Amino acid sequence: MAEDCIFCKIVAGDIPIRQVYADDELLAFHDVSPQAPVHILVIPRKHISNMNEAAAADQPLLGAMLLRAAAIAKQQGLAESGYRLALNTGPDAGQSVFHIHLHILGGQRLEGRMG
Amino acid sequence: MAEDCIFCKIVAGDIPIRQVYADDELLAFHDVSPQAPVHILVIPRKHISNMNEAAAADQPLLGAMLLRAAAIAKQQGLAESGYRLALNTGPDAGQSVFHIHLHILGGQRLEGRMG
Repeated sequence: MAEDCIFCKIVAGDIPIRQVYADDELLAFHDVSPQAPVHILVIPRKHISNMNEAAAADQPLLGAMLLRAAAIAKQQGLAESGYRLALNTGPDAGQSVFHIHLHILGGQRLEGRMG
Repeated sequence: MAEDCIFCKIVAGDIPIRQVYADDELLAFHDVSPQAPVHILVIPRKHISNMNEAAAADQPLLGAMLLRAAAIAKQQGLAESGYRLALNTGPDAGQSVFHIHLHILGGQRLEGRMG
């Protein structure tokens, strides 16, 4: 756990969330500032600041995040209509919380422009 | 290899690309219609249509895609300035090629809106 990390506080149960999924290594919850009708974040319980800090040993965890995101998207009824998964790293991507979070966005026609 | 899949044709070497990286399971190349100064796609050699079709057995491959994307972003000088990784599935996300491809976007301040 990293001090002053809001997502570590969420993992610790200190901040309420609208939880979607939880297991031993991952947690998923609705984004508090949704950019689409469905906007869910999947985070590892382990503190990793962003993809710059992800190590080779995190490979299974990262794969699990993507698979879990797809399973959640399906559960949310997005499998056919479609969805975007996005991971932001650093200032140009507007990363605001420095604890890896995979965005699941769907429920509307998404912006064509990603950059 | 899936017939009529343009990315399978790229994997087979039948379509020229501006290659950035290649190994036994992954290939990375510059997007032909870049949405940012750096816009690179990382694809598995194996044909998987999109995240709806990714199976539990693909977990290591998916983790490898994310780690490779981070390594490429670093190599492209984006580690400090930042970058976005995005995976589009289905019509609402505007998926145009039905072979999983992870977008790496960077080199400018990216759109804040992802949805």
